[in-house]
Amino acid sequence: MKSLGKHLLVEFYNCNPSIIDNMKLVEKYMKEAAIEAGSTIVQSVFHMFQPHGVSGVVVIAESHLSIHTWPEYKFASVDLYTCGEECDPLKAYKYLRDKFESSNADIKELQRGFIDNINISLEEEACKVAVNDSYDRRNVL
Amino acid sequence: MKSLGKHLLVEFYNCNPSIIDNMKLVEKYMKEAAIEAGSTIVQSVFHMFQPHGVSGVVVIAESHLSIHTWPEYKFASVDLYTCGEECDPLKAYKYLRDKFESSNADIKELQRGFIDNINISLEEEACKVAVNDSYDRRNVL
Repeated sequence: MKSLGKHLLVEFYNCNPSIIDNMKLVEKYMKEAAIEAGSTIVQSVFHMFQPHGVSGVVVIAESHLSIHTWPEYKFASVDLYTCGEECDPLKAYKYLRDKFESSNADIKELQRGFIDNINISLEEEACKVAVNDSYDRRNVL
Repeated sequence: MKSLGKHLLVEFYNCNPSIIDNMKLVEKYMKEAAIEAGSTIVQSVFHMFQPHGVSGVVVIAESHLSIHTWPEYKFASVDLYTCGEECDPLKAYKYLRDKFESSNADIKELQRGFIDNINISLEEEACKVAVNDSYDRRNVL
């Protein structure tokens, strides 16, 4: 079934703890991963917890990339949610797996926003989403 | 299997388009939903697209709440990702469904960060996560 977006939920196990506890590095890699995926960065927010751990989100025109790290567990939880045909979140996944030096990763792919369900709620035929419409999101500004 | 967190992926169909196209309202409701869920807000970022649509993320100590809206489709895609026993993302879901006036919502629940997989990657026995450990994240500051 056609959908607006693709969402990869990634669990990176056995990461390098000194990398995933470094907020500057995590932010850098997440932004680079967004570019690798072919997305357009809008804004980002990153936070360093005490005594350790980083949380961050890169909002993109095509949805978002997020991360939460547990350096004490060598674990990072990442979401790569993109819309449109131009982005490939799998490229972001491969990039981050390499940068975080994760030797064991679990990845699930879910579809977001099913077109059939959207069309059921749109009463005006003119508004309905055609199967071959571009699902790219709007202009950034 | 025990895990660090719970992630609800929500598709809100048939929303009130004027509400989900109002960035101030969306931001207000997302922050209130975070509080309803019992979480601690760290930072947030919200963006208004042209010609319509809102994207936003509320980073919480317990992970994050995110939203992307398509007012032209009366659709909003929401993620409610929380860790620890204190938060209940289902309360955030119910709150938002009411505020967005969505008459049709799809909700999927996934676990994030499986403890068994984490322990496999931790060589030092002292670091391993015991089944009855608290998975609450660290102090905010």
